[in-house]
Amino acid sequence: MLAISEKNIKVVTNGHVTSPIGFSAGGVHCGLRRSKLDFGWIHSEVPAATAGVYTLNTFEAPPLKVTKASIAKEKKIQTIVVNSAIANSCTGKQGMDDALQMQQLAATQMGVKLDHVAVTSTGVIGVTLPMEKIRQGISSMNEPENYSAEKFETAILTTDTVTKHVAIQFEIDGKTITIGGAAKGSGMIHPNMATMLSFITTDAQVDPDSLQNALREVTNKTFNMITVDGDTSTNDMVLVLANGCQNNDTLSENHPQWPLFVHALRVVSENLAKQIARDGEGATKLVEVQVKGAASEKVASQVGKAVISSNLVKTAVYGADPNWGRIVCAVGYSEQPIDPDKVCVSLGHIDVVKNGLPLEFDELEGKKYLEQEQVKLIVDLQDGSAEATAWGCDLSYEYVKINASYRT
Amino acid sequence: MLAISEKNIKVVTNGHVTSPIGFSAGGVHCGLRRSKLDFGWIHSEVPAATAGVYTLNTFEAPPLKVTKASIAKEKKIQTIVVNSAIANSCTGKQGMDDALQMQQLAATQMGVKLDHVAVTSTGVIGVTLPMEKIRQGISSMNEPENYSAEKFETAILTTDTVTKHVAIQFEIDGKTITIGGAAKGSGMIHPNMATMLSFITTDAQVDPDSLQNALREVTNKTFNMITVDGDTSTNDMVLVLANGCQNNDTLSENHPQWPLFVHALRVVSENLAKQIARDGEGATKLVEVQVKGAASEKVASQVGKAVISSNLVKTAVYGADPNWGRIVCAVGYSEQPIDPDKVCVSLGHIDVVKNGLPLEFDELEGKKYLEQEQVKLIVDLQDGSAEATAWGCDLSYEYVKINASYRT
Repeated sequence: MLAISEKNIKVVTNGHVTSPIGFSAGGVHCGLRRSKLDFGWIHSEVPAATAGVYTLNTFEAPPLKVTKASIAKEKKIQTIVVNSAIANSCTGKQGMDDALQMQQLAATQMGVKLDHVAVTSTGVIGVTLPMEKIRQGISSMNEPENYSAEKFETAILTTDTVTKHVAIQFEIDGKTITIGGAAKGSGMIHPNMATMLSFITTDAQVDPDSLQNALREVTNKTFNMITVDGDTSTNDMVLVLANGCQNNDTLSENHPQWPLFVHALRVVSENLAKQIARDGEGATKLVEVQVKGAASEKVASQVGKAVISSNLVKTAVYGADPNWGRIVCAVGYSEQPIDPDKVCVSLGHIDVVKNGLPLEFDELEGKKYLEQEQVKLIVDLQDGSAEATAWGCDLSYEYVKINASYRT
Repeated sequence: MLAISEKNIKVVTNGHVTSPIGFSAGGVHCGLRRSKLDFGWIHSEVPAATAGVYTLNTFEAPPLKVTKASIAKEKKIQTIVVNSAIANSCTGKQGMDDALQMQQLAATQMGVKLDHVAVTSTGVIGVTLPMEKIRQGISSMNEPENYSAEKFETAILTTDTVTKHVAIQFEIDGKTITIGGAAKGSGMIHPNMATMLSFITTDAQVDPDSLQNALREVTNKTFNMITVDGDTSTNDMVLVLANGCQNNDTLSENHPQWPLFVHALRVVSENLAKQIARDGEGATKLVEVQVKGAASEKVASQVGKAVISSNLVKTAVYGADPNWGRIVCAVGYSEQPIDPDKVCVSLGHIDVVKNGLPLEFDELEGKKYLEQEQVKLIVDLQDGSAEATAWGCDLSYEYVKINASYRT
């Protein structure tokens, strides 16, 4: 995982979704793939207050619809089951029946309420689930040897090259609260894998409506600020489960330490989001675009997204080419009200544009900076005090290769 | 050029901007590049009614500002001068002085009114023009041997691999009207070349305001519907000059044959736009996305743009991989009100998705279809009668190579 340095927050070494009290997780190979683990789950000792954010793609996959509907009812989840390889998307009525059956089977297996089970799938679009294999995966949830956070994190991956997990701790009312998270991402691929799934767990007691507000706010600043190739999948989902096992006074907007909890949730979300961006298809670098001096947060985030999404910026970073002109250009077409004569651009510590005009700088130093594994592009609009940060990756030959050579 | 088949319209074999009566054009090497032609011009015997559309990028290059202001005054242009290699963009006051001087020098050289000269530049951002070389280019406009449409078309190119030109003829009031055009494009590059310049000439007599309306309408259906890499440059411009040398009754919305003229203007614009898309950086194919059955033209064009801009669709086409899921996904995130259960997708003649569900089709046949030099992706939303077409190209290794390896 990537480094975190925040006061009041302690990073759990090798932290996972199982770091908070009362959560277990596991994964098995149920046969959807040749040999790789392809079925995983997270389970809480008790039903957990749950918040969720979902894809904006009009094509919602059946499992996403089922999960969304169940959470809407009681705002509680106790068990999450995930399969990779097949997204169960664009599968019509059959796909809906399969998602509902998957939920039913998991509820029976774990002895939890039907509406306390979340079902999620990620993989190829337009293929229905081989239910006998899913059934086998669910039945294996009763075997202790299948339980481990690493197995879960591995089972949910598609084209990801590494597992993505993190956990942090902080004090509230003298209680040590832990938030853990796991994610899969890497971008659309082969031919159309779901982009992003994130699961966040905490042993804090949290009011579900407050949790939903916090997640929406945090998601807009983290998961919604990363891009690998701009595509939004049919299965994107972020779930946060708060099982309250720390028996703290219920956290909500009224609690004096609510800001600390929301900040901690943001730290976990940002860390997972950056891990996803860094592991984008064919990515060789994590790119951070920091926009400051904006008239509003909207302007800042739109400008940031325009720069991080530019194929020209992404290829320039891949080639370690200090092409500030491409950054300026993306700022210019972001369709935001900005003053070109105020725009300043820096590549990390190297200032390259001031008030819309180029500065003399050492090309080689710029190249050296962009050759690093993590690079920061800074845009100052000098037009206000709003800021936003976007994360992404470079565009490499490997990206084209991965995406062009499917099934060949 | 690409094939045109339209009744009432005759294609001029090897047509150019000089095919209409009263237009001449030329090009020379003035030293901005090592050896390639880098300075060109179009001249009309008489001042021509002129319409223009310009980049939406907030960073407008000085030459674009100068040209825009001059056309706004009298809506007439007689001489257009163009230099490649340097965009004179992000060059501040110096850049503005240079653009104004370039206009002044050309006006004196050709003996035309200052405001009847359009100046345009395309090339690297952030570099000022070496004016002595520009001056040399302008002085060479009096030597007959420098005159030829091919020289002009070559001089305006940046990373384009071929010249782009076309001309058509049609009858209005018994007069043969000719419309010619030349363009350069190929996408932002090295480090940031202006994307697109198009110059259209006609010997028809046209009311300038009507011409402006026609150009705006036509541009939205042609030049604004192509994408190479989604970037919009600081120097994009389309100019139409109508010099009236055919002495026809002035064309305007009130003329019974106005629709024919507008249609002809669209035919030329679409043909140039497709030539630009086909010659996109590293492109191996021309991709056409046809959206039909839309509730409105806006929905149709937004869906078309989402599909043609998707890196996943572009790489799939490059790899000749019939990944309909990527097309469906792009339709889904186009942020338009569509009904997923009505969406149909075809790869040319091969239907792959019906009412949101996959159809059985021959993978190999799909691959063979996508291996062609021109491919058509058809999306039917079954939600209305509005249509739109977008053009683009595939995303190849070559694109990454061209854009990543600048100056190395």
